[in-house]
Amino acid sequence: MKIKYIGTNFHGWQRQLNAISIQQVIEETVERIYQQKITVFGAGRTDAGVHAFSQVAHYQTEIIRPIPKLLRGLNALLPDDISITELKHVEDNFHARYDAKEKTYAYNIWNNPIDNPFLKPYCLTINNPLLLDNMNKAASNLIGIHDFSSFCAASSETKTKIRTIFSASLQKISSDLIIFTITGNGFLQHMVRIIMGTLIEIGMNKRKDTNIKELLKEKNREKAGPTAPAKGLTLIKIKY
Amino acid sequence: MKIKYIGTNFHGWQRQLNAISIQQVIEETVERIYQQKITVFGAGRTDAGVHAFSQVAHYQTEIIRPIPKLLRGLNALLPDDISITELKHVEDNFHARYDAKEKTYAYNIWNNPIDNPFLKPYCLTINNPLLLDNMNKAASNLIGIHDFSSFCAASSETKTKIRTIFSASLQKISSDLIIFTITGNGFLQHMVRIIMGTLIEIGMNKRKDTNIKELLKEKNREKAGPTAPAKGLTLIKIKY
Repeated sequence: MKIKYIGTNFHGWQRQLNAISIQQVIEETVERIYQQKITVFGAGRTDAGVHAFSQVAHYQTEIIRPIPKLLRGLNALLPDDISITELKHVEDNFHARYDAKEKTYAYNIWNNPIDNPFLKPYCLTINNPLLLDNMNKAASNLIGIHDFSSFCAASSETKTKIRTIFSASLQKISSDLIIFTITGNGFLQHMVRIIMGTLIEIGMNKRKDTNIKELLKEKNREKAGPTAPAKGLTLIKIKY
Repeated sequence: MKIKYIGTNFHGWQRQLNAISIQQVIEETVERIYQQKITVFGAGRTDAGVHAFSQVAHYQTEIIRPIPKLLRGLNALLPDDISITELKHVEDNFHARYDAKEKTYAYNIWNNPIDNPFLKPYCLTINNPLLLDNMNKAASNLIGIHDFSSFCAASSETKTKIRTIFSASLQKISSDLIIFTITGNGFLQHMVRIIMGTLIEIGMNKRKDTNIKELLKEKNREKAGPTAPAKGLTLIKIKY
């Protein structure tokens, strides 16, 4: 399934105790339709507050139902902030998470002295002007195969912190809207948010545009910028 | 002042007992800055749930403050869903409501079998396909000077129900987004919402595209369509 969601009212994708997650809401909906216990596996564990324009997930069942009716049924039960946009049968060995080859995330930045109420739930708001050229120069240094230890939550227990970034750049969409888009083979915990926090500091001239290169060498989370707020971040696309 | 707001969490523009309104929030903010009792007069009394891309309001005071600082101060105190985008001094006899010459409202329609969580707070969602040509033919009949009694809340106590509509049309913005834009010298209570409810029924082939003409003659609220939900409606612009 492909899923669109607004992360604002959820504690992230992953099911957890004592807090409502997107995975839990979708699982409960799928279980209500099939009347059996079903686990839904998502491609990316988005953080609390992160949105998805197109998350991918799979589940396994032996009950066969016609897809159009199933899609209508699931969406009728889901809350307003989650929609399943596509459903299809896949090979038995397909896995939403392990088979993902590329993920694309986007950060929206509202860059104007005056806040925009319409975009606030989907944007990082920066009231001071940003040096976009410096940010783009810095972002280009993320491309390639690197150890992203400086850009990973200190609490992460991932074995390897090496990831491949295929593209990373910022685009001015209008006079006050900037979008940072990054595509990679996978992302560490908080990686996009720490990269964004660091790029913002570069845009504010608090760091040099060569800083990303140094941070990749240093492999030290404490040297990078702050973790940017989740609400400006959206999981855009997953490629298989 | 020009104001942007998301109407979702407010009971409309106008101050009232026992319910929070946008006027009240802005008045209290202005009063906090000036430390005196001040009334803020809005150009249009938007309904509960209606948004504003550019509402206009004025207030009167003898205390003179530098505008850039005042603007920053007001916005710093306002909640996330209200922003003042512009402030300027006006003639003593200016009145935001009585001097307004033209108002433009827009209705966003998400027209797809599957809901869009990102647009849901700002759209009317219609899952069945709409006959856009029929709706546009019908909308063109609204243009001109007419008695809009059929399109006015039954409870309204306005003296005259004659209004002038300068333009009214629907545009397909993308494969699933339609925007209805209407400009007039003024609007009766619920007028845009009842027009929208009627146009939607025309788009669903439940009414003929000549129906608007008949409704204008009949002057009977009961003959028109339902009042469309407020959340798809936005006050776009006011001309003086």
